[in-house]
Amino acid sequence: MSFARLQKKIDAMANPSVVGLDPTIDLLPPHMLDELPLDGMDEAGAFANAFADFNARIIDAIIDIVPAVKPQSAFYERLGQSGIYALHATAEYAREKGMYVIADAKRGDIGSTAEAYSDAFLGEPYEPHFNYAPQFDAVTVNGYLGRDGILPFLKDAVKYNKAFFVLVKTSNPSSGDLQDLELANGKKVYEVMGELIEELSAGTDDEFGYSRIGAVAGATYPEELKALRDKLTRTFFLVPGYGAQGGRGADVAAAFDKAGRGAVVNSSRGIIGAWKTTGNGGRDYAEAARAAALRMRDDLRESLGI
Amino acid sequence: MSFARLQKKIDAMANPSVVGLDPTIDLLPPHMLDELPLDGMDEAGAFANAFADFNARIIDAIIDIVPAVKPQSAFYERLGQSGIYALHATAEYAREKGMYVIADAKRGDIGSTAEAYSDAFLGEPYEPHFNYAPQFDAVTVNGYLGRDGILPFLKDAVKYNKAFFVLVKTSNPSSGDLQDLELANGKKVYEVMGELIEELSAGTDDEFGYSRIGAVAGATYPEELKALRDKLTRTFFLVPGYGAQGGRGADVAAAFDKAGRGAVVNSSRGIIGAWKTTGNGGRDYAEAARAAALRMRDDLRESLGI
Repeated sequence: MSFARLQKKIDAMANPSVVGLDPTIDLLPPHMLDELPLDGMDEAGAFANAFADFNARIIDAIIDIVPAVKPQSAFYERLGQSGIYALHATAEYAREKGMYVIADAKRGDIGSTAEAYSDAFLGEPYEPHFNYAPQFDAVTVNGYLGRDGILPFLKDAVKYNKAFFVLVKTSNPSSGDLQDLELANGKKVYEVMGELIEELSAGTDDEFGYSRIGAVAGATYPEELKALRDKLTRTFFLVPGYGAQGGRGADVAAAFDKAGRGAVVNSSRGIIGAWKTTGNGGRDYAEAARAAALRMRDDLRESLGI
Repeated sequence: MSFARLQKKIDAMANPSVVGLDPTIDLLPPHMLDELPLDGMDEAGAFANAFADFNARIIDAIIDIVPAVKPQSAFYERLGQSGIYALHATAEYAREKGMYVIADAKRGDIGSTAEAYSDAFLGEPYEPHFNYAPQFDAVTVNGYLGRDGILPFLKDAVKYNKAFFVLVKTSNPSSGDLQDLELANGKKVYEVMGELIEELSAGTDDEFGYSRIGAVAGATYPEELKALRDKLTRTFFLVPGYGAQGGRGADVAAAFDKAGRGAVVNSSRGIIGAWKTTGNGGRDYAEAARAAALRMRDDLRESLGI
C-alpha cells in the first residue's frame, strides 16, 4: 500500500515506529528451542516454523500499539526454502491483522531481473493461479545500478498501490565509503541518490504529499538526516539505526516534517530481543517486546512532541 | 570455490564463458508448458519443477564445453518458496556435475544481516544438521553500503574456500546515474568501488594472482572495462552484457589479462532462449543452447586469440 496508509496508522497510534522481525536462533527463547523436533529430516523447516510462531506472538503482543513490521529477508533466506515459507507466513499474518508490512530485501537489478524482483515483493502472482503471491506493502531497494533498477519497482508500486524505499544514507559505520564521496559539483553521492528518487517519483504523491519512492536514511547520522529531510520534501523516510545501533529519539526527530509526519523509525533486536534483559528466561518474550515497543513509542513521542 | 578452480576449468575448456540460468515462463518451450500439471493446489511448485528440469537438461547439454553457470535469484524468488527449491536444486545439480556455480543475487547489507546473507549463499548450514546448505561457489554483492557490507562475505569466502563479485560498473544503460558520477578528486564512483575491492581483498590471492573478491564490469562499456582491467590487477571479472545486451567478443577482450585469464563472460537469454530462433518449436531447446554456447565460445576464442 502507499505510504498514506502507513501514515494514517502512525497518526492513529501516535507512534511512528516499525518493528524489525529479524529472527535468529540466538533470539529464540530457550523454551522454544527445547520444544523443537530436531530428530527428523527437516530441521531447517522446524526452525522456520519456530521463527513464524515467534513472529506471530510478537505481532499479537504489539498489534494495538505498533503500525508496521519489517521482516529482514536475509534471516529467512538463511534457512533455505523453509525460511521463505516463514517470511511469507509472517507477512501474511501481519497483513491479516492490519499491519503495514515492509520487506527489507535491498534488492537491486535491471530490466527483466528487476521486474522479477518486483514481482516477488510488490506485484501480483507471476501466474494468475499461483499459490504464491507477495504479501508485502513495500520493499527496500538498492539503487546503485541507477534508474534501470528503480523504475520497474515504481511501475508495480503505481499499478498495485504499493511503495518502496531506496537506500540513500545507511546507518552503518562504513556507509561513507561510497555514499559520502564528494563529487566534482560539491554534492555527495547519497545526495544525488536522494535527488534521483525525487526526480523519478514525480507524479506519484499521496494525500500527505509523499511519493511512492521512500528513502532509507539512518538515525546514526542525524545531521545528514536533517539535511535530507529539508531537501527531499516529497520523500517518506525509513530510519534504521535506532536502539541497538546507537540512535536515540532526539537523533531521529530530524527525519520528520513540520507536521510530525513523513518518517518511520525501525528497531529490531531492541524489541524482539528485549526478553534477554528482563531476567525471566524468555517465557516473557512477547510481553518484553511489547514493553520495549512502548518505551520506544514514548521516547519518540517525547522527542517529536506528539 | 576460489576463482582458481574456475580459471582451471576455463583453461581446460578454452572457454571463459558462463551461462546464465534465468528461467521465465516465456522461455519454457511449449511442450514443457503443455505437460505441466496446473489443476492442483501447487501451481508455483509445478513451474518450479519445470524450471529445474529445463536447467538440468541445459546443463547436461553444455557440461563438456561450458565451465560455469549463473542462476539469477530473482527468477526463482518470483515463484516463492518453490522457486528457492528450484534454485538450490539447479545449483546442486550443476555442482555435482562439476560446474562452477555463481549465485547472481546482488545482496548487500550490514553486520549480522550481511552474515545471514553470506550464510545463505557462501557459508555452511546455519545449524550443523540442517537439510539446507548453500550450493554455490560464488555470489554477487552490491557494495553501496561500504566495507561493512563486503567484509562478512570475505570472511566466509576465506573460511570456506569460496569467492564473490562486487558490482563495480554494471552493463545497463543507466549504470552511469550513480557509478559514473565524477568525484572532487577526478575519479568516478565505480573506480572507487574497484579500489575498495582491491584494498579489502589484500592477502587472499590465488595461484593465478586473483583475490577472492571479483568485480562485475559490463561488456557494454568496453573502454571502462579496459581501464578497470589495467588498474585492478588482482581482481577477477564477471562480465555481463554479452549477446542480448549488445556486447560482442571484441568488446569483452579488454576484460582479460595478458595471459588471457582473469575474466568470465556471461550470456543468459542468448543461450537458454536460443531455441526460439531455430524454427523447431522448442523441442530442441537443449541442443539449441549447446549450439549457441559453442558459437559464443568460438567468438570469444577468436577475439582472445586462444
